[in-house]
Amino acid sequence: MTHPAMSEIIGGQLDRVGPVHTPTVRASMKPHTSSLFDGVLARGEVAAAVGDDAWLTAMLQVEAALAQVQAFSGLIPQADADAIAGCARPEHFDPADLGARAAASGNPVVPLVETLRALAGPAGPSVHLGATSQDILDTAGMLVASQALRPLLADLAACAELAARLAREHRDTRMIGRTLLRQAVPTTFGLKAAGWLSGLDAARWRLEQVRRERLAVQFGGAAGTLAPFGDDGPDVVEGLATLLGLTEPVLPWHTERTRVADLAGALGAAAGIVAKVARDLTLMAQDEVDEASDGSPGGSSAMPHKRNPVAAVCALGSAGSAPGLVASLLAAMAHEHERAAGAWHAEWRPLRELLVCTGSAAAWLRAALERLLVHPDVMRANLSRTTRSDESPDAAGVLVDRALQAHAKGP
Amino acid sequence: MTHPAMSEIIGGQLDRVGPVHTPTVRASMKPHTSSLFDGVLARGEVAAAVGDDAWLTAMLQVEAALAQVQAFSGLIPQADADAIAGCARPEHFDPADLGARAAASGNPVVPLVETLRALAGPAGPSVHLGATSQDILDTAGMLVASQALRPLLADLAACAELAARLAREHRDTRMIGRTLLRQAVPTTFGLKAAGWLSGLDAARWRLEQVRRERLAVQFGGAAGTLAPFGDDGPDVVEGLATLLGLTEPVLPWHTERTRVADLAGALGAAAGIVAKVARDLTLMAQDEVDEASDGSPGGSSAMPHKRNPVAAVCALGSAGSAPGLVASLLAAMAHEHERAAGAWHAEWRPLRELLVCTGSAAAWLRAALERLLVHPDVMRANLSRTTRSDESPDAAGVLVDRALQAHAKGP
Amino acid sequence: MTHPAMSEIIGGQLDRVGPVHTPTVRASMKPHTSSLFDGVLARGEVAAAVGDDAWLTAMLQVEAALAQVQAFSGLIPQADADAIAGCARPEHFDPADLGARAAASGNPVVPLVETLRALAGPAGPSVHLGATSQDILDTAGMLVASQALRPLLADLAACAELAARLAREHRDTRMIGRTLLRQAVPTTFGLKAAGWLSGLDAARWRLEQVRRERLAVQFGGAAGTLAPFGDDGPDVVEGLATLLGLTEPVLPWHTERTRVADLAGALGAAAGIVAKVARDLTLMAQDEVDEASDGSPGGSSAMPHKRNPVAAVCALGSAGSAPGLVASLLAAMAHEHERAAGAWHAEWRPLRELLVCTGSAAAWLRAALERLLVHPDVMRANLSRTTRSDESPDAAGVLVDRALQAHAKGP
Amino acid sequence: MTHPAMSEIIGGQLDRVGPVHTPTVRASMKPHTSSLFDGVLARGEVAAAVGDDAWLTAMLQVEAALAQVQAFSGLIPQADADAIAGCARPEHFDPADLGARAAASGNPVVPLVETLRALAGPAGPSVHLGATSQDILDTAGMLVASQALRPLLADLAACAELAARLAREHRDTRMIGRTLLRQAVPTTFGLKAAGWLSGLDAARWRLEQVRRERLAVQFGGAAGTLAPFGDDGPDVVEGLATLLGLTEPVLPWHTERTRVADLAGALGAAAGIVAKVARDLTLMAQDEVDEASDGSPGGSSAMPHKRNPVAAVCALGSAGSAPGLVASLLAAMAHEHERAAGAWHAEWRPLRELLVCTGSAAAWLRAALERLLVHPDVMRANLSRTTRSDESPDAAGVLVDRALQAHAKGP
Repeated sequence: MTHPAMSEIIGGQLDRVGPVHTPTVRASMKPHTSSLFDGVLARGEVAAAVGDDAWLTAMLQVEAALAQVQAFSGLIPQADADAIAGCARPEHFDPADLGARAAASGNPVVPLVETLRALAGPAGPSVHLGATSQDILDTAGMLVASQALRPLLADLAACAELAARLAREHRDTRMIGRTLLRQAVPTTFGLKAAGWLSGLDAARWRLEQVRRERLAVQFGGAAGTLAPFGDDGPDVVEGLATLLGLTEPVLPWHTERTRVADLAGALGAAAGIVAKVARDLTLMAQDEVDEASDGSPGGSSAMPHKRNPVAAVCALGSAGSAPGLVASLLAAMAHEHERAAGAWHAEWRPLRELLVCTGSAAAWLRAALERLLVHPDVMRANLSRTTRSDESPDAAGVLVDRALQAHAKGP
Repeated sequence: MTHPAMSEIIGGQLDRVGPVHTPTVRASMKPHTSSLFDGVLARGEVAAAVGDDAWLTAMLQVEAALAQVQAFSGLIPQADADAIAGCARPEHFDPADLGARAAASGNPVVPLVETLRALAGPAGPSVHLGATSQDILDTAGMLVASQALRPLLADLAACAELAARLAREHRDTRMIGRTLLRQAVPTTFGLKAAGWLSGLDAARWRLEQVRRERLAVQFGGAAGTLAPFGDDGPDVVEGLATLLGLTEPVLPWHTERTRVADLAGALGAAAGIVAKVARDLTLMAQDEVDEASDGSPGGSSAMPHKRNPVAAVCALGSAGSAPGLVASLLAAMAHEHERAAGAWHAEWRPLRELLVCTGSAAAWLRAALERLLVHPDVMRANLSRTTRSDESPDAAGVLVDRALQAHAKGP
Repeated sequence: MTHPAMSEIIGGQLDRVGPVHTPTVRASMKPHTSSLFDGVLARGEVAAAVGDDAWLTAMLQVEAALAQVQAFSGLIPQADADAIAGCARPEHFDPADLGARAAASGNPVVPLVETLRALAGPAGPSVHLGATSQDILDTAGMLVASQALRPLLADLAACAELAARLAREHRDTRMIGRTLLRQAVPTTFGLKAAGWLSGLDAARWRLEQVRRERLAVQFGGAAGTLAPFGDDGPDVVEGLATLLGLTEPVLPWHTERTRVADLAGALGAAAGIVAKVARDLTLMAQDEVDEASDGSPGGSSAMPHKRNPVAAVCALGSAGSAPGLVASLLAAMAHEHERAAGAWHAEWRPLRELLVCTGSAAAWLRAALERLLVHPDVMRANLSRTTRSDESPDAAGVLVDRALQAHAKGP
Repeated sequence: MTHPAMSEIIGGQLDRVGPVHTPTVRASMKPHTSSLFDGVLARGEVAAAVGDDAWLTAMLQVEAALAQVQAFSGLIPQADADAIAGCARPEHFDPADLGARAAASGNPVVPLVETLRALAGPAGPSVHLGATSQDILDTAGMLVASQALRPLLADLAACAELAARLAREHRDTRMIGRTLLRQAVPTTFGLKAAGWLSGLDAARWRLEQVRRERLAVQFGGAAGTLAPFGDDGPDVVEGLATLLGLTEPVLPWHTERTRVADLAGALGAAAGIVAKVARDLTLMAQDEVDEASDGSPGGSSAMPHKRNPVAAVCALGSAGSAPGLVASLLAAMAHEHERAAGAWHAEWRPLRELLVCTGSAAAWLRAALERLLVHPDVMRANLSRTTRSDESPDAAGVLVDRALQAHAKGP
């Protein structure tokens, strides 16, 4: 259902919705997790993009956008919407305070709305009109995910570019292929890198699809009926989607969680392909293999001069959390009735963690590939160990070309 | 890369590839698992479609198709390909024998090829030319998955139709909406069913997409280089894909497992939405709620006259295995180098189990919805318990209409 | 609570309970799973011990023992108990038939009891007296688990002995220690093997503890109240425990699933330590490292002369399923009220699979260690690559001695 | 191996090791996670006990204790140990700074040791003598876990006491038993509570066992050989264990992770039983059942006067993360060689999260049980709905008595 008139007009109202105009991650955003382990397990910009500030900002954006849409529909005065937009600024709220007060109702939107109403003064009754907490938190979660996917997708794209460059440069660099960790027959490093490229592209293109098609606004009111709005309900949803840059769903999806599952699955696949590449890098960096190494290796506290492939190791360490977190999100899909008694709450932390660990894995892999030193001479030497001279991976070059073309062509 | 001439001509050769022409599940196929629990946990046709016979048939289809393609390319005599097609029939092979002999090499393709070569006599040297075990097993796995998805998708589609019918019939059947398991505000049973419909459609459409785009032939030879074939390699892959009805991959994907991950994620989401609907059904079937019941309820051994919502219960019991199995498949993505030392083997059982449990869940939900008895009078009575008369879910009907339109429109 | 008199007397009645006297796995037992993949993923005797025949036998043992105990307590005539024992023989039942009929009620005990009652003729009314399906199936499951743990523990014990022998023989065999897959400082192969030993012992001792303390009889009747038996209820439970060789629980545990969780956790830890050892073996078997190799290596279909470390690879492939299955069992713990609506059914398949995959992993590791060829000369050569002569792992021998002493001492 | 003399003497040295004497969680400790969601998902004291400050304090305790033990053994001057103890104070270190610098080496111990050496001045060379980063971080992790288990076990014990009280008070309060969510036969609320008690006791007693027996000091040096210490190595380990109140391991366990697995499994079981009780509470709190309610219910932002069973809901929301996290820890057990390339790092976040979510679940369940309102009159009314008068759960009282006795007796 399209309501072109509304979409167009709302476009013109966007400047009244203050905090919506923060598309990039604020520099001041604090990551949500430990700083002690974050250097290793939360590399990159995703952690900040899913931090308390990001969630708070997103929730306020949703409240402000809701008021704006409702004003346009004549449900509340435009002055109220403007007043709400003026109050819905993160600097007026303390995440720790909201978090503490969230214990009473079981979610942080209840205290957020209380405070926002108080701040809005006479416009207070127009705050959060017809919405339920889950409308705000789910929509904010989609905004947060959408924002967090930016740096994640950028890191995956950079990984793919780096793999493509390796594939191109080493199109004809012969090395031994290894199966079951034993030397098998010759391949090229270009083809190995092309395999990485192919997987990285598949994972990020799927993630882009999920971002484009499945991150939807949530709005349904107390039981998902859009009850207070009558036939205007869908228009409010459409307006919200337009204003917030999210997909418009056919229905409220309070207890229909395939969107969360799709996002989880795509993140899990991305973490998995990152782990595959990182595993190869750590195996190639073994002293006894030594075909590639980390250009900025890490030492150890006992052996400062050791040259550990730190970036690949940290990519593996980060990615390792993903499968369990995907399972947690899938296991939480059986939401009861119109809104769940626990299954919804069970999504918050795993989704955040899954974004962080996948983002960290991708950022570390990017670093690993950026600083990778390839040793063609060692590849040649290892190859001569088991290979008869008449074996030739001639088709490998053709395959590399195909992979590069597919990469250039896009999804 | 398209090779139209080859595609066209190979199409004409299809009748020479004997066992490929078994697109439907054979009646004689034995399910792979226990019969003791299969009535509950392996309902429907998926279990048979992933059984030993199905795998064996698929592996032989791949070997026969490979010979056919290679004959077309002049790599082996056409007579050899025909001889191989004649031998590659499941009745000549004993899965138990292959399984036992598989222990020596770590996979069942090695003994299968030995036996097939022996059967093929003079054509023996043309069997499995340039292929590695994983080429055969992965391609067979994709065929098996593709076949198993047929009944699974049919059951999901039937569930969606049944939900659509409920949504239509009960568009205006008022009931209480429940949030956190407490009575909230009125909704309609039509909207509840429309929510089920929306989720079921999303899950099956994604699964169809994966089936269409991501189930690819695997062919690369020992180290994924298509080494024996030179520039002809990609043509062999294309021919195989055409003959077997699978996607043609850009590269061999021996250790690039995003295809498996995508399939796993889509199955996990499908199991999850089935669980959501089944959970609602069990909650509605409580004596104290009694808004819907299983028309063929089950008794218990202690209380034969009890009316348990067996179908929904078994759907939940089946679906419960899915998240852990998805995690297993994602955790197995870090395949080493050109072919993995364990991670590949670690996929076989979870993938099979995931197909079975998701298929069983869908088949049970279909049964649950087919025999569902809806009690609008009880819904009305429960509604009056907490609801003020002026609350009306008028927009619910509009939402139901939207959901039905989206369902009719398709993905 | 001990009832010595009863225990003693029941001991004397044991010979009347026919099928209970089958403590070892019957040769005819068919494994429950695919034969095609079982050579790789279901090595050893666990698969047969959890097969349909084993479950069927166990369920009948429970019914027979129940009748025997009830006869002793005067609840049914002794002649009925004897008649039931005579009928409760697996050859009278067809698992596939029971499985198919199980779909009506949601579990296979209902049809089993129907058939058993029919077979028992006049003793029919004494069959299954006061029991609920879950009493029989849970107790049978504990019997099956107990039986399946025998070969699993035997394989783990053999692994430990083999590791102990390696630790002893190679107490002073110097090799390079590797951290983050890079050469670090010298260690000994004896210490590496002692580390394996230590982990294997820890895992199997915990598993033995679970087997001894946590595998309990289940008996509570329809809602876990022992309702039909009044104050005699606990005596029936005690009698059953004595007769079946299981622990007597304080209460029925129909929806208190910490026993299942403890078993799952212990199996998951066992699979994990097996994977650790197998990972080391595959890494040591790399051509470029070559410090140990599989004495019966596997070839590939493309490269018949390749020497793959098949046993370790299959151990990893088997163990890889465990973590996800543990998650499934833990996620199924929230059983509703007195008996669950789906969560119970969700345990059956994962528990079986977890036993099989852990058993297979242990059996493969045993094979890997039995046929392991250690190459001390290569260890020495690799050591000289990076190590200064003045570094000496002198304490390693002391640590090996400690590990061997702890192993000899036991838990 | 016991070294009584050393143990005794070291006991006398304890007062020189400054920071070890902080057995309780410091009031100033900041939780490691988001404050926005912590009110819901990180209730109780566990989150603070696993926060950055707790980890930092623990790492410094380990360094200080190590110096103290080494001084006692004459390996470093006592004055150096005292100087190190004086510097090893958390207020001298910034977790964020350590975390950022950790990226270079892949763990935060490397920068911590650098800073500690700089602070120690002339005693610098005595800092971290013979230790590797993993020695410090693993031992600190065990200290942190040990500390975090205090409030967690206290909350579980309180839950058990509350369940025991309910069992006692409602020993004879009749209610309907429900199976598959349908009314079955009568039971008592006392027996239901006794079932909760039994599971809570089992879970916490296992957790106590793990805390007592499996939380061990880690010390082995670069490759786990105790290389620099010769025969004195084991004495250093024993001294550390004595000083820090942890178990003395037979061997370093850098890559033998059954201890982590045991802890994970026990936490997973605890979260599972908490979820079971909470599920019952949410089901009993349904308007249509109404047999128990939350005395401090939560409202919603759309329906402020709604009476949601918030505590039970949040317990479920918290516990839902546990199974996936357990899977992550089990999947990370295959540590390579002497120290792992990623699998170790993959433990940090899931272990922390698992402690937090289990702790939060237990704290919420405690709140739920503390403020639980039981409605015996409604139980009676619901019972009359389906039950014939001659059914009596007389044995239920006996079972309650048994459960209370077992609870009183302890493990």
